[in-house]
Parts: sequence; structure tokens; C-alpha cells
Amino acid sequence: MRKRVGIVMGSDSDLPVMRQAAAALDALEISYEVRIISAHRTPEQAAAYAREAEGRGLEVLIAGAGGAAHLAGVLAAHTVLPVIGVPVNAGALHGWDALLATVQMPPGVPVATVAVNGAKNAAILAAQIIATGDAAVRERLHAFKEKMASEVAAKNEKLDALGIEGYLKEKFGN
Amino acid sequence: MRKRVGIVMGSDSDLPVMRQAAAALDALEISYEVRIISAHRTPEQAAAYAREAEGRGLEVLIAGAGGAAHLAGVLAAHTVLPVIGVPVNAGALHGWDALLATVQMPPGVPVATVAVNGAKNAAILAAQIIATGDAAVRERLHAFKEKMASEVAAKNEKLDALGIEGYLKEKFGN
Amino acid sequence: MRKRVGIVMGSDSDLPVMRQAAAALDALEISYEVRIISAHRTPEQAAAYAREAEGRGLEVLIAGAGGAAHLAGVLAAHTVLPVIGVPVNAGALHGWDALLATVQMPPGVPVATVAVNGAKNAAILAAQIIATGDAAVRERLHAFKEKMASEVAAKNEKLDALGIEGYLKEKFGN
Amino acid sequence: MRKRVGIVMGSDSDLPVMRQAAAALDALEISYEVRIISAHRTPEQAAAYAREAEGRGLEVLIAGAGGAAHLAGVLAAHTVLPVIGVPVNAGALHGWDALLATVQMPPGVPVATVAVNGAKNAAILAAQIIATGDAAVRERLHAFKEKMASEVAAKNEKLDALGIEGYLKEKFGN
Amino acid sequence: MRKRVGIVMGSDSDLPVMRQAAAALDALEISYEVRIISAHRTPEQAAAYAREAEGRGLEVLIAGAGGAAHLAGVLAAHTVLPVIGVPVNAGALHGWDALLATVQMPPGVPVATVAVNGAKNAAILAAQIIATGDAAVRERLHAFKEKMASEVAAKNEKLDALGIEGYLKEKFGN
Amino acid sequence: MRKRVGIVMGSDSDLPVMRQAAAALDALEISYEVRIISAHRTPEQAAAYAREAEGRGLEVLIAGAGGAAHLAGVLAAHTVLPVIGVPVNAGALHGWDALLATVQMPPGVPVATVAVNGAKNAAILAAQIIATGDAAVRERLHAFKEKMASEVAAKNEKLDALGIEGYLKEKFGN
Amino acid sequence: MRKRVGIVMGSDSDLPVMRQAAAALDALEISYEVRIISAHRTPEQAAAYAREAEGRGLEVLIAGAGGAAHLAGVLAAHTVLPVIGVPVNAGALHGWDALLATVQMPPGVPVATVAVNGAKNAAILAAQIIATGDAAVRERLHAFKEKMASEVAAKNEKLDALGIEGYLKEKFGN
Amino acid sequence: MRKRVGIVMGSDSDLPVMRQAAAALDALEISYEVRIISAHRTPEQAAAYAREAEGRGLEVLIAGAGGAAHLAGVLAAHTVLPVIGVPVNAGALHGWDALLATVQMPPGVPVATVAVNGAKNAAILAAQIIATGDAAVRERLHAFKEKMASEVAAKNEKLDALGIEGYLKEKFGN
Repeated sequence: MRKRVGIVMGSDSDLPVMRQAAAALDALEISYEVRIISAHRTPEQAAAYAREAEGRGLEVLIAGAGGAAHLAGVLAAHTVLPVIGVPVNAGALHGWDALLATVQMPPGVPVATVAVNGAKNAAILAAQIIATGDAAVRERLHAFKEKMASEVAAKNEKLDALGIEGYLKEKFGN
Repeated sequence: MRKRVGIVMGSDSDLPVMRQAAAALDALEISYEVRIISAHRTPEQAAAYAREAEGRGLEVLIAGAGGAAHLAGVLAAHTVLPVIGVPVNAGALHGWDALLATVQMPPGVPVATVAVNGAKNAAILAAQIIATGDAAVRERLHAFKEKMASEVAAKNEKLDALGIEGYLKEKFGN
Repeated sequence: MRKRVGIVMGSDSDLPVMRQAAAALDALEISYEVRIISAHRTPEQAAAYAREAEGRGLEVLIAGAGGAAHLAGVLAAHTVLPVIGVPVNAGALHGWDALLATVQMPPGVPVATVAVNGAKNAAILAAQIIATGDAAVRERLHAFKEKMASEVAAKNEKLDALGIEGYLKEKFGN
Repeated sequence: MRKRVGIVMGSDSDLPVMRQAAAALDALEISYEVRIISAHRTPEQAAAYAREAEGRGLEVLIAGAGGAAHLAGVLAAHTVLPVIGVPVNAGALHGWDALLATVQMPPGVPVATVAVNGAKNAAILAAQIIATGDAAVRERLHAFKEKMASEVAAKNEKLDALGIEGYLKEKFGN
Repeated sequence: MRKRVGIVMGSDSDLPVMRQAAAALDALEISYEVRIISAHRTPEQAAAYAREAEGRGLEVLIAGAGGAAHLAGVLAAHTVLPVIGVPVNAGALHGWDALLATVQMPPGVPVATVAVNGAKNAAILAAQIIATGDAAVRERLHAFKEKMASEVAAKNEKLDALGIEGYLKEKFGN
Repeated sequence: MRKRVGIVMGSDSDLPVMRQAAAALDALEISYEVRIISAHRTPEQAAAYAREAEGRGLEVLIAGAGGAAHLAGVLAAHTVLPVIGVPVNAGALHGWDALLATVQMPPGVPVATVAVNGAKNAAILAAQIIATGDAAVRERLHAFKEKMASEVAAKNEKLDALGIEGYLKEKFGN
Repeated sequence: MRKRVGIVMGSDSDLPVMRQAAAALDALEISYEVRIISAHRTPEQAAAYAREAEGRGLEVLIAGAGGAAHLAGVLAAHTVLPVIGVPVNAGALHGWDALLATVQMPPGVPVATVAVNGAKNAAILAAQIIATGDAAVRERLHAFKEKMASEVAAKNEKLDALGIEGYLKEKFGN
Repeated sequence: MRKRVGIVMGSDSDLPVMRQAAAALDALEISYEVRIISAHRTPEQAAAYAREAEGRGLEVLIAGAGGAAHLAGVLAAHTVLPVIGVPVNAGALHGWDALLATVQMPPGVPVATVAVNGAKNAAILAAQIIATGDAAVRERLHAFKEKMASEVAAKNEKLDALGIEGYLKEKFGN
């Protein structure tokens, strides 16, 4: 079956963050595949994956990496598909390095960057992109947006009912 | 005529940066409209613009702002269209504030952030998004990518021919 | 009963910080209400809350949020009441993002920003604002200021009596 | 005549920034006085000014300083009036030092911090504070907010009429 | 007995850091006193302490504080004694705020700043200052410098003898 | 036996990081020696070590240090051997200080800086330098590069076989 | 004649900043000498200068440098005299590198760091140190402190007389 | 004729910085070639250049780039030659982005990073690497090191002769 989104990460240590992208795509019923491809340790595979992505029918790529996070940029260099970059908080510099290495792309080769560790948002952005040509996905996004608002409303009602201390006790158990 | 991309900016002082988005969309033959809407000075218009964008047939929004750059986030709060954020270098902090205020969005409401002052890349990213459902735009993006490569090749030939000092003299006239 | 201060936060994960604002207002005998309202997930509610705040008799708003912390700015866009922003330390960037997204507001729409996680100070600042028109609150602030000074004096006496190591043993139990 | 706002700055080199606070208070018809008082070079005067401010009928203090900007904090230490801090962009670190030295106040002694060089917003915030007990000032703030929105609308109309290049030519003359 | 060094800190939460200054002065046989004085909560005491320090025979002041760390600057404003500032790592911003608020003093009022949490070095610096007029202290500093060098030499010998893994096992027990 | 690489560190607290350099050199079969030498506590030894390094047949120096990390720079001042600097994450500022103090060397005296805590890469870089004149080491580096690529490929196969959750369970046991 | 203060700088490009230290010492009638010594280009001279400083009767050293500013640290490694570090704003990183490389010294070897480009304060701090054993210098420091306060008072009177705009016109001529 | 060093840059806008590498190699009589190759606009050429570099006899690569500076990392991914990275100060973030994107490489693929705009040092480092197998180059490096020291000595003599103001007048003509 054709996959619509490719989730790529530079190392399996990024998996605890990037699984959130997979979970969000599952919830939005969008097919995807997951690959570990390092821009630096497997550069040929990174280039090949990006070059072949359009032909294989992928519509959006999501790339998560930490440190001097080049993965999203390398993919974007080899494809005209939209590439979403997830800077991963890893190592001493807490994601500042990954953020700048992902977002500060030169003119001509954009990477759509989300927040540090923002894998869930990467999936939602991928869905928004796909939804520009897929009314069913757009419907799901509208539903998702409404659900978010209802959840906040429900929390407010609970807060009104329990008060701050009661709410915190229920939430954190202390 | 229906516009496909909405370019919004928080202030007319952002126009010298954001005109590059318009120029790039012109080159890629993608229709667009330009609006000055402030998240803080005209919040109703910002909300209305984003809420109506999908119905008006816009496919992607580009938002440029400096400082505590909330514009892209405010638009994203009111639409499921993809929103691209351009942090603008303005004021003492040189765009660090705009970058963080644009990219660090909470789970559920992504903004596709490009580089500080990266308005040209915002346009190319918008084109990549539109191209997921428009083969003609995708063709133009492939052509654009090839043209970029040729330009670099031409520069290399010139550098070989002129040498470093000759090249700099021709380029900068000194 | 009319509330004088509205404490708003973007997520219930901000509650462990923002409860300190409530506690400080309790101590200063100033009435308040607490709401979870997200600038991004419930933008309509955020706008409505701010627009109606003045009419409902609220005098000051306190808004706490993390990441691309737009909440205080969104409220300030919709009201002329003073809005106090509390940048919350959340996520990889340790509050730098929330600080800049809260404080760097554009000309015309100020947010009175306090320290990262400075919810207690937000409450005291709200009291100082209310005290400009309420002599009883001002009295309580003077008393609070004196109490702070006495507490420091008491610590000094204890330090003199116990010495550094004795003091630390009593305070930290080691 | 009683002044309502005290504008204090650490050095006359802050005056080109702080004059904007004076101008905005003029526009909002709020009386004020201006003082150069250094937290470090004239500490006695700083303490005395703050201690006497309440008795002299001042309602809000605005303090602008650069570098290790202690002025606002020193004033706040000596008064229960609301103190608004304006971090001034001065020296090599471009206001980062002044921002942190102003906003990161310890529990008990808040400073209402605005953006780096945000003297205009300091004045508007002072007006918002005064407006909690002065309906005439609040009216002026509502009018100011509407005027800001109209100005943005006017710019939009001009942009529609002139196009980007025409607009920029008119604005910047090139 | 006359004390030669005054160790002042803004809060008893700084004591675990500042005790290292006391310990180092003990080792160098230099008399000192310890005070908790807050620039913001007890400004009168801070000013009085600094003004009286010279007359009481103190030769150097050491001030430790976190956040918008004004303590050292406030002391320096009120005395011509050398004031050493110790930025304390406290709160979300990890000492960046305390460092800038301590070191970036305006022309005319220096603070001799040491590293974040560098209380031990503050004591050694105080000793170096005292040693400009006290040959016995200078002798102790020379001995201290030699001892440091010997300790490194001893570690090297142990490392040669045990190898990396053996050394780590002895040091960390794993 | 002549050693080819000198691994130097400023303190034995750097050993848990720097041991990775030793391990990587072991794997690449390159001889080395390990020294604890402080640029500040044992400056004579640091200078002597660097001055004698070339004569003793060392080919590359690796220096790891935290804070105001001067060790690599001091060595580079005294030798024309290539010096590789490893900024060590230590203390409140998380390696930002060590990174800047290591990499921002003045014209004329370079330090080859690797990532914060990047001791393994320092060893590989040393091997790459040695390999410019040693075909056997170059062979090992090619093999190492291939091994890295295979390991990523193996992880991908496992990820395909187990899925995200299965993979994470095997890797992290939860 | 014996000099009391040694002003050292890493490069003659630091001279426009460091001349301010010389000027301030002139004003305080303290003798000094000036040297260009690079920690990296002339490490032997740096070590020798510091080792001999005490014997030559120097009482304080002032060291100014930019980038990976090791000069003050190198001097401090070789002497027990107090060493004052002036981080110089040079190059792309605007003094952040020099600040961290100067202030973040390891335990045992302090550098008394002043503000970025704070050469004038380095001189005043040197005078404060010398004044611990020289009543005449202390008198001059008291006089200097009073003069600073009078100058601020004079500016205030002028500001009262001329108003903001008049003052700015006189000061900046526009 | 075989070239020993490849100087590569991402854009011809990096040429004013990178020419300093060429000039330094000229002075050290080391042959080199210069190429404009973009990691993002011409990724195939970047990969091919790096893969073929060893076979063509190049011994060291120098890569200069600004923003999300991936060039050095991309080259290092495709070769086992030592790759030296020069972060170029370009755009709003003043080289912080290029520094982090260059230096924070993942384990296994080092880049030898020099200072922001440190192209001259990149050349000297390349020479130091080549000198590990070339005694003539090492001789030139020793001579270069001595020349640097003499130049500083000459400046000191001039400073002694002319005094600060005379020196500045001769150097800057004012």
C-alpha cells in the first residue's frame, strides 16, 4: 500500500520523540512509513530516499534529528516534496543546536520547522499539507481542532468544580 | 480571481522582507494576496482573515512578524490551512525573539517556520505544499531546483576563469 | 461576587506554577478567578474572555504560558486592562522562548512581564496595580514588605546563632 | 501640579529611548516628571525618590536602564507603587543583559518589564494602570486602541491601491 | 575581633554555594563574617552594610545572588571597597541572568565578577586583594598555588598507575 | 613505545567524557597516552608538555576541558602539532562556555574543535589526521565508516520487523 | 619608577578599548605600564610577564582580550596578584565569547571580570584594590564617587531647565 | 598539478571570508583548489566532490558556510579525509547558527571546527595536518609561529616609543 508520509530520523535515540508523529498520524488515519537514516552515517541512503520519495508516492517527509541536525536539510536538497523538520533535544545544548541547524536553511531549499521535540505538530502539519488536496483529511483536522477546544473546556469545568488544589491532587496525586 | 496564497505581515515595516515572498511566488506563477494585519493591533481582523481563508479558497498562509511574533500562531489557531511563519529580524534582539515566538508552538497547532527573514523560502515551501496537488507547480519547482544548480555551476566556472581576486572584483567592484 | 483579578493559563500543566499567584492573592485578600484558556487551542474563548473582562469588573489579568507563549499578548490585544505575563519554564528551551514571546510585544500593546515562573510576583504586581485605587490593599502591601524584611532579619539572627553549617543542617537536614 | 507618572532613567544616554515614554504620556494626557537617577552612581537619590514617590502622589514609576539594569529593581525595593522596567539596548550585548537584569526579579519585589527599548509601551502600561481608577484615561486608551486598528486598515488600503513596490517607494523613497 | 571580609548573600537558598567562600577563607586563615541581606527585600540594610563596611575595617566584600542579581551592584554603589560578585545558578535560566546582572555594571561602579557559583574563587580573589598589603596572606597563596599543582601531579601518577578504568572505578566506584 | 596521540584533560572530572576518546583510539589501533594537566593550575606542565610533544613523536594532541576551557588553546600556543579541542559540559552553563572558549581562537593559532562532549569524534579526527600519512589507519577508517552504515541498516531492519513500539520495548525495556 | 598596575592586551586592536583603563588610572594618579602580549602568539612572554610581576612591584594586572579570551586566565595561572579581566567586544559573537572565556575560570584561579569593554571599570577596580593599603588612593576614590553623583545632579538640573527635547538638542545637536 | 587542500564554500557570498584561507595557504606554499558547492543547491556535486577527494590526492578539505551550515558535515559524511569547518557570519543570527550547525556533529563523523569567520586558521590547521607527514611544511609553520611572536614584540616596542595615543594615531589616523 502506498504510504503518504515518510517519518525519518537520524538515530534510534530519536524514536521516543518521533513516535509521537506516528501516533498523531494514526489518529488522523494517514498512512506512513518509518526509517532510521543518518545524514552523516548513511548519506547515500538519505539522498536516495529523498530522490525516490516523490516517485514512490510519498507526499510529505518528516525528519527528526538532534545536534548539528542536517537530516531535514539533506532530504530537502534532494526532493521538491515539503520536508518538515523536528529539532530533537539531545546532548548538552538542549536542542538549540538542532533548532538552528534545521530552521536556518539558505534561500531556495526550505525546511518547515516545528518546535524542539515537536513531533506531534510535525504530523499535524503533514496532515494540513495533505488536506490541501484531500477533503476527508481536512474534515478530520476540523474535528481534531474542535476536540482540542472541548478538552480545554472540560478541564475548565473540572477546575471550577475541584479548585486548584483539588485539580492538582487529581492530576498529580499529591 | 481566486488567490492561492495569503501573505500576511504584522506591520508595513516587514514589507522589505516579505516582498521576497511575493517575488518568489510571481516567479513560480502562483497567485497570492498581501495583507497587513497585526495580531495585536487588529486581532479581530487576524482571526476573521484566518477563519475565512479556507472558504475563500486560499490554500496556504504565510505570516511574517518580528519581536514577540504571534501572527503566524494566531492565524494557525483559527484555520486548518498550513501556516508558514517568517520570523523577521527587527529590534534589538535580532530575530531571536521572533524565531522562538514563531517556532515553539504548543502541541496541536503547528506553524511551519522558516529561517529568520526567510520570506523567499516561505514562498517556495508554499509552492511545495500546493504542488502536492498540482503537477504544473511541481514541474516548476523541479525546474527551479535545476536552475539553482546551474547557477552554482556557472559561478564555479567563472571562479575558475577569474580566480578569487578577479571574481571578487567583478562581484563587488573592489 | 465580583472578582478583581483573572488568572488565566494556557494549559493545566501550568497550574503548579500558577497556583502561586492564587496563593499570593489569597494572602493579600484580593478576589480572583482561575481559567484554563489556550491562545491556540481555544482562541475564541481567549478573545471573548479578554473583551468581556472590563465589563465583568475585572481589574487586572494575569496570564501564564510556556513555549511560544502568546496568551498574555492575545489577551492584551483584546482589552485595555493591564495584562501581566508569566513566562512558564516548560520544554527544552527552559523558558527562554516563553520569556521572549511574552515580553517583546510591539508598540501599542504592552504586557507587564515578570520573571520566568514568577507567578507570585505577578500576584503582587496585580495588587500594586489595584492599590493605586484601593488604600486597604496598599496597606497590606506595606505590611507584606515589612514582613519580608523581618523574615530576612530573622534568618540573619539564626545564621549568627547557628553558623553556616548549623543553619544548613537545620534547613536541609544534612 | 501633582505628577502621576515618574519617568526615571539611569543615564542621559537613555534619553533618546525614554523620550518615547514621555511622548506617549503626552498623547494620553497623563502628567509626568522626568529624572536622571543612577542606581549605582546616585544610590541615595534612587532610594529617596522611590520612598517619597507615594507620598508625592505619583501613581506609577517607569525606569529605563541598560547593562546590569538595576534601576527598576532598586526603585521597586523602596516602594509599593507599580514599577515598570524598560531594558535599554546599550553596549555589546544588545539589551540581553538589561532584559534579564530587569525581569528576573526575586519573589516579593516585581518589576513590570516591557520589551527592550519598549518605552512607548511602558507609557501605555502606566496609562492602563492609572485607568483602573480613572474612567477618562480608560476612554483615551479605548480611543487609542481603535486608532491603532484604523491606521492598520489605512495601510492595507494603501497597499491594495499601490501594490508592494509602489508602497515601498512611497514609504522609503526608493 | 575585626573581620576582613564580608560575605553577603541575597537569600539563605544561596548558602550551599556561598559556604564554599567561607571554607576557602578558613583555609587561608582570613577572618570573615556572613550576612543574609537582600538588595530587594532589605534595601536599607544593604545600603547601610555597604556604607559602614569601610569604617568597620572590612577590606573586601563578597556578594552572592541569583536571578536579577543586584546585590553586588548595590553594595558597590555604597562603598569604595572592592566588591566581588558571585552569580548564583538559581531558577530556570541557570545563572545566565545572575551572570549578566552582576558583571555588566556601568562605568564608575565595578563589580569583580567570578564564575557562576564560583564562591571558592571569590574567596581566593579576596585573599589576593588582601595580599597586596599582607605578606603573610601572600605566602599562603603561593603555598596554595603549589598545593594545587601537586594535587594535579598526584592525580597524574595515580592515572598512570591505575589506567583510565581503574581510576574511574576508584573515583566513582563503578 | 612511541605514542601517536596525547589525550590531555584539565581535571579528572573530565575523565568520564574523555575516556571515549581513548576507547575510540583503541578500536582504531592507534597508540596514545593520557595526562591530567590544567592550563590554570599547572601552567608550566601544560607549556612543557606541548613544547616537547613534537620531539617526543606525538602527532596529534586532544585536549578536553570545561568552563573557561583554555587547555586546548594553551597547548596550541606552544606547538605546531594539530590540537583538537573537546569542550566539556560542566557547571551551570552546560558547555556553552567551554565551546566558545575552545573554538573562538584568534588568527594564527587554530584549535580543531569538536562537539560539546565529543571526545569520540576527537579520536576519529585524530585518526583522520594520522591517516593522511598512514594507509593502514585510513583503511581502518574506511572500515569504520562502512560499519557505521551497516549498523544503521541493521537498526532499520529491526524497526521494520518490530515496529516502533516493539523496537522501543526491546531497546529501553518499557 | 615602579609601576603599580600592568595593563596587558592580546592585540593592538584592543587598544581603543583599553586606553580607557589608562585614562582612568591617570585620573586617579596611579602609575601603570602598558603591554601587548598574546596568550596564544607570545605565550612565553605572557607567562614570564605574570611570573615576574610580583617581583617587579606590580600590585594588580589588567588583561583585555576578545574571542576565546585566555589572556587574563593565563596571567592568573602564573601569579598570585589579583588579575582583572576585560572581555573585549570583537568579531561576530559580540563579546559573548570573551565574557565566558574570561569569567568562567575553574576553582583555584580566579579572574576578576568586569563588563564587556569595561576597561574604565577595570581601572577603578584596580584602584579599589590598591586603596585597601593606600589611604591617598582611597581618598581619590571617595572624591571620584562624589563627582559622579554631582555630575548626575547637574544633568538633572539641565534636564529640568531645558526639557527633554532641549536637552537632546544640546547633547546630540539634532 | 595535484592540489593538497580543497577549499569549498556554499555560496560566492562566502568568498570575502574564505579568500583568507587561500591567502594563508599561499603564504605557507601549500597548493589548493577553490570550489563553490552548496550542500543544499548542489547536493550531488557536494557528495561527488567529497567521495572523489581522496582519490584525487587531496589531503584536507576546508568548508565554509553560513546559516544552517551543513556543507562541512556533508563532505565529512562522504570522505575519511579530515574536514575543517568555517562557520561564516551571515544573516541575522551572526554566525551562532553556522557555529552550532558545524561543530555539533554526531558521533562517528567529526568536523574540525574553527572560529566564526576563522578562514585563516582553517588554512593553518590544514597546514598543521599536512605537516604531520611533511617536514618542509612543518618548518614553515615553525617560522610562521616565530614571525607572529616577533610582530607582537615589534608592536610592543612601537607602543613603548609612541605611547597609547601616538600608537592609535599612527594606526587609525585619528
